[in-house]
Amino acid sequence: MAYRQLSIESIAEYLQGIPEMKKVFSSFNDLDIREIGDGNLNYVYLVKNKEKPNESVALKQAVPFLRIVGESWPLPKERMTIEIKALLKASEWCPQNVPEIFFYSHEMSLVVMKDLSSHGVLRGQMIEGMYFPKLADHISTYLAQNLFHTSDLFLDHREKKEMVREFINIDLCKITEDFVFTHPYEQNETNVYNPELKESDIKSIQEDSNLKISVAEMKKKFMTEAQALIHGDLHTGSIMASEEETFVIDPEFAFVGPMGFDLGAIIGNLLMSYFSHEYRQPLLGREPYQYRKWLLETIESLWSEFVNKFENLWINHQNSSGDLYWDYDSGVEHFKNQREKYILDLLQDSIGFAACKMMRRILGLAKVADIADITDLKERARIENITLQVGKKMVTERKKFQSISEVIDLAQEFSTLK
Amino acid sequence: MAYRQLSIESIAEYLQGIPEMKKVFSSFNDLDIREIGDGNLNYVYLVKNKEKPNESVALKQAVPFLRIVGESWPLPKERMTIEIKALLKASEWCPQNVPEIFFYSHEMSLVVMKDLSSHGVLRGQMIEGMYFPKLADHISTYLAQNLFHTSDLFLDHREKKEMVREFINIDLCKITEDFVFTHPYEQNETNVYNPELKESDIKSIQEDSNLKISVAEMKKKFMTEAQALIHGDLHTGSIMASEEETFVIDPEFAFVGPMGFDLGAIIGNLLMSYFSHEYRQPLLGREPYQYRKWLLETIESLWSEFVNKFENLWINHQNSSGDLYWDYDSGVEHFKNQREKYILDLLQDSIGFAACKMMRRILGLAKVADIADITDLKERARIENITLQVGKKMVTERKKFQSISEVIDLAQEFSTLK
Repeated sequence: MAYRQLSIESIAEYLQGIPEMKKVFSSFNDLDIREIGDGNLNYVYLVKNKEKPNESVALKQAVPFLRIVGESWPLPKERMTIEIKALLKASEWCPQNVPEIFFYSHEMSLVVMKDLSSHGVLRGQMIEGMYFPKLADHISTYLAQNLFHTSDLFLDHREKKEMVREFINIDLCKITEDFVFTHPYEQNETNVYNPELKESDIKSIQEDSNLKISVAEMKKKFMTEAQALIHGDLHTGSIMASEEETFVIDPEFAFVGPMGFDLGAIIGNLLMSYFSHEYRQPLLGREPYQYRKWLLETIESLWSEFVNKFENLWINHQNSSGDLYWDYDSGVEHFKNQREKYILDLLQDSIGFAACKMMRRILGLAKVADIADITDLKERARIENITLQVGKKMVTERKKFQSISEVIDLAQEFSTLK
Repeated sequence: MAYRQLSIESIAEYLQGIPEMKKVFSSFNDLDIREIGDGNLNYVYLVKNKEKPNESVALKQAVPFLRIVGESWPLPKERMTIEIKALLKASEWCPQNVPEIFFYSHEMSLVVMKDLSSHGVLRGQMIEGMYFPKLADHISTYLAQNLFHTSDLFLDHREKKEMVREFINIDLCKITEDFVFTHPYEQNETNVYNPELKESDIKSIQEDSNLKISVAEMKKKFMTEAQALIHGDLHTGSIMASEEETFVIDPEFAFVGPMGFDLGAIIGNLLMSYFSHEYRQPLLGREPYQYRKWLLETIESLWSEFVNKFENLWINHQNSSGDLYWDYDSGVEHFKNQREKYILDLLQDSIGFAACKMMRRILGLAKVADIADITDLKERARIENITLQVGKKMVTERKKFQSISEVIDLAQEFSTLK
């Protein structure tokens, strides 16, 4: 079927023509259809049977331009092909953490999936100070399963390289290259600043030689290192969560890139939430320590559980695949040394990427509501400065970090509620 | 035209049917056709007009198996497609250092190119102690031109990623992954050892935890880092040279990989030649210092000229493309810092890869004649041990090296003709 853009008016008829939809909907006569996309890239519709509200799906369709700008910014709708394939790949390894797919069409650039509207977007819920006791467990599982099973540590050389080819994602990678690694660190017309942020604070990032070289190194890693199939945009807005369940959505930026980019994205977003709650917890009428403590504990357990799960996958795979590389007296211990070194490199990558993602949210075009929605602009600037200073230290000194707890210590050092 | 394997009998008729060949040969009636392939992978024929010996070409055809083993080791003939494209790409940037292509056919997996038989293979000529005063200049140009112009430092993001896709080289990369980075560092049935090499010396490599972790890191880099279109097999057997001219041939292993792999390959091969001439120069009836001094000087100038040329390409490109990333008071100096850091990382990569390529020539299947053809097996073992020990230090301590002269010092420290 040739591509055509669906609308609230045409969706019911379209769904009725798809055999797979008959398993979800007992009737297509009285559907409640609403557009719920955040309006940046795609259209997302929620479709419910008014008679039986349990019969519902989410339908996401890409249009061949950047929705937020319009047709003047063309963007190939083939990005939906990447998203569909990435969702299917993730559902091989952790079906419980990605939305179930009922139907997809590469030609129509659309996917019909489980309605997750009973789960809020994690970012919004965290802004409201909600706790997610299973978040670290779920996201560490999602990351360990996906990153391990799409890396050279698990995949056959042929599968891996064919995956690299299949997931080359030229246009969406370019967005990251520009808006995460380039524009925020130079004077660029796309940057947007809080008017209360001092020019000297902006310059302290944009004209710092060491910092810019470090960011350029992270950009090079992003552009060249085909380590595993990564989500590519794993911020708290790409996660739908309840207390019990966690779903990772929107992998349209997926490509075979450095693992640390995903780990850094989520760590960086949790850190920004932590900084923002200096302001938000008192605003919510709460004492400020408990929630922020939970956030830091979440970062710490997300990392340590990730390491634990990733290492176990690696050990089990090596044991079952009969690889002999370490097969001699001290081999077991030496294999352990190798894993520790691999994980340490990954920690340092993750810290560098987390820093880039934090600083760009302050200096670049796209903001995070956690900080950008703080109405007291002076308070916002104070928190933005904490973010910038912590980011600066993280990226320039990333190779000195030996454990995640040093990241926690650094965050606490700069964000002391003074 | 469907694929068929050519032979000495069928080549004249085949060439006669190709319009492009009429520009080279005034007649096809009396051709001298000889097979000159080294017998590992492909067939290479030298075709000369007996009447007018200046009318000559080399014809290289791939067969769908590893020639040295036979049809039991299938190898897609598509590797010739990579070789042709890599030759064409290199001839864009340094036509003087790659053989001129007269004709190619992807279907027939063949290429007809300049007859370079007046230029010997570099390795053989170096074994004989011949000097190549322009080698460092030519190879540093070849490397700077090719590596810079196929990296993200020069290419548009789209061209770069399409190049990555186009040059995915699954089967030939696998050969390198196995025979350079894996088998030599484990007990493997494909390994071949000089019987005079002690088991303890072999174990000192194969059971050294730090060394194996370092080699695994270099392997990861080889498998994941899509930095530039590299030759992939740049040893002295892939170079045809006279005193005046230098041609790089056989880029069938080309893919988008780490730049340091090419730089390391040539440095490693020159170092092995240096070690071998402890033995060879006296055998040639010469005093042993002068030639070995020339070899080390060649390594040193190859590197420093490469850096010089590469940096100039980068600076000129930045100046002409108007990138503003460093556009502020101290920007010029900061850009210089960035280049120096990039080059230092590249030096350390190159040292690591050189080491892997050196050690594998001692412990793995494929040898270099410089060392393997030493008939006094005890002398050969002594030189092999020097190679292993220097390689071990280079790969495990690669991040400590700050300049190429430290590599030279190390080589001299271990190979003192004592």
